[in-house]
Amino acid sequence: MKLHTYFRSSASYRVRIALQLKGLPYEYLPVHLVRGEHKAPAYASHVGDALVPSLETDDGHWLTQSMAIMEYLDETHAAHPLLPADALGRAHVRALAQMVACEIHPLNNLRVLKYLVHELKVSDEAKTGWYAHWARSGLEAFERQLALLDAERKAGGLPPSVFCWGDVPGMAECCLVPQVFNAQRFAVNLDGLPRLMEVVERCNAMPAFQSAHPSACPDAQ
Amino acid sequence: MKLHTYFRSSASYRVRIALQLKGLPYEYLPVHLVRGEHKAPAYASHVGDALVPSLETDDGHWLTQSMAIMEYLDETHAAHPLLPADALGRAHVRALAQMVACEIHPLNNLRVLKYLVHELKVSDEAKTGWYAHWARSGLEAFERQLALLDAERKAGGLPPSVFCWGDVPGMAECCLVPQVFNAQRFAVNLDGLPRLMEVVERCNAMPAFQSAHPSACPDAQ
Repeated sequence: MKLHTYFRSSASYRVRIALQLKGLPYEYLPVHLVRGEHKAPAYASHVGDALVPSLETDDGHWLTQSMAIMEYLDETHAAHPLLPADALGRAHVRALAQMVACEIHPLNNLRVLKYLVHELKVSDEAKTGWYAHWARSGLEAFERQLALLDAERKAGGLPPSVFCWGDVPGMAECCLVPQVFNAQRFAVNLDGLPRLMEVVERCNAMPAFQSAHPSACPDAQ
Repeated sequence: MKLHTYFRSSASYRVRIALQLKGLPYEYLPVHLVRGEHKAPAYASHVGDALVPSLETDDGHWLTQSMAIMEYLDETHAAHPLLPADALGRAHVRALAQMVACEIHPLNNLRVLKYLVHELKVSDEAKTGWYAHWARSGLEAFERQLALLDAERKAGGLPPSVFCWGDVPGMAECCLVPQVFNAQRFAVNLDGLPRLMEVVERCNAMPAFQSAHPSACPDAQ
C-alpha cells in the first residue's frame, strides 16, 4: 500500500496511526501541501478533492477521506480492530472520531485559515481566536461525551474504559491524538480536560503513536 | 427508536432519509435550534456536543453524530443496506459521505455562520460568499470524484452507476441530498454539476427522500 501524506496533516496523521496500530507496512509518499503539490495534476487527477491523505491499494485503487480509509483498513485487515465488536460500541467510537473529524478539524485546517486571512481579511489575533474557539469548544464537548460514556458503562456493568471506550485505542484515538497535537501547536488552553488528556498521554507512550508522529515522518521539517 | 431532530438541520435530514430508506418507524422529537433547545439540560445532559440529531435506542442508549447513527442503523437492520457489500465500494461510498460531512457542512452550519457575523463582524455579503465558496468548491470536488469513480467502474468492467456508486441510494445520497437542498436555500450556483444533480433529482423523486424532506417534518415552519 502507498500512503500519500503530509507530515503535518492531521488527517494523514490519523491514518498513519491506524496503519501502525494494525502493523501494516506501507510506502510513505509525501505531498507537500504548503508548496501546493496536492493541486498538481500528478496528485489531483486521482483524488476528487485533492486533499491528503489518500491510500493507493496494491491493486491500484485510490481511497480518500481518512475515516473511510481507516474503516477500509479495519475491514480488510483483522489485526488490532479499530472499532469494538458490538454495534453500540462501534457507534460510540465512530461518534467520537466524528466529533473531531466533523466538528473541530474542518474549521481549523490550513485552507480555512487561509480563507479567513486572504478573503475575509481577519487579523492574526482573530484567526488565532477562531482556531482556539473551535478547538477548545470541540474538545470540551469530547470531554463531556467521555463522561457520558463512562457513566453508561458503569450503569451497564461494563469495566471502566482505559482509553476512550474500552481497553484498546482505536478510531477515536486516531482522530483525537492528532487534534490535540494540533491544538498544542497553536497554544490552545487544554486545562480542565483530564479524562481526554489522560487518553492522549497513554497513547503517546505507545510505539504505534510515536512512529506516526509528524516529527517521525520522512518529510518532517 | 426516537430521533431528536430539527426540520432544517442538514445532519438530521441525513438520518431521516436513512430511516425512511430502511423502512424503520421512529418517534420524531423536535429540538428547536433557533430557540436554543439543544443547549437546555433536558437535551444537552445526554449529548456531549449538544448537536442534533441524536438517536435514542429502544433500550435507552443515546447515539450521536449522523454518520455514526447511519452506520449503526445499517449494522442493526439489514433492510436496504446503506453501504455496498464489498470493502472497496464501502470505502468509496463512505468517502463521498465524508466529502459532504467533513468538508462542506461543518463550514456552513448555523453556529459557524453566527460566529462569522457576531465575533468576526463580517458583512452579510462576506458571509454569503463564505457559504457559497465552501458549498460550491465542495460540490465541484464531489462531481470530480464521481467522474473518477465512474471511470474506475468502467475500467473494472462494472455496470455504470445509477446513483453515486451502484444502483441504489445509500449513505452518500443521505449526505448529498440535504447538502444540495441547503445550497439551493442559500442560492448557490449549481450549474456545471450534471452527474451529481442527476443523482439528487433521482433521489428527490423517491418517497423515502420526500418523507424525510424538511418541508414534510412536523416542526416545519
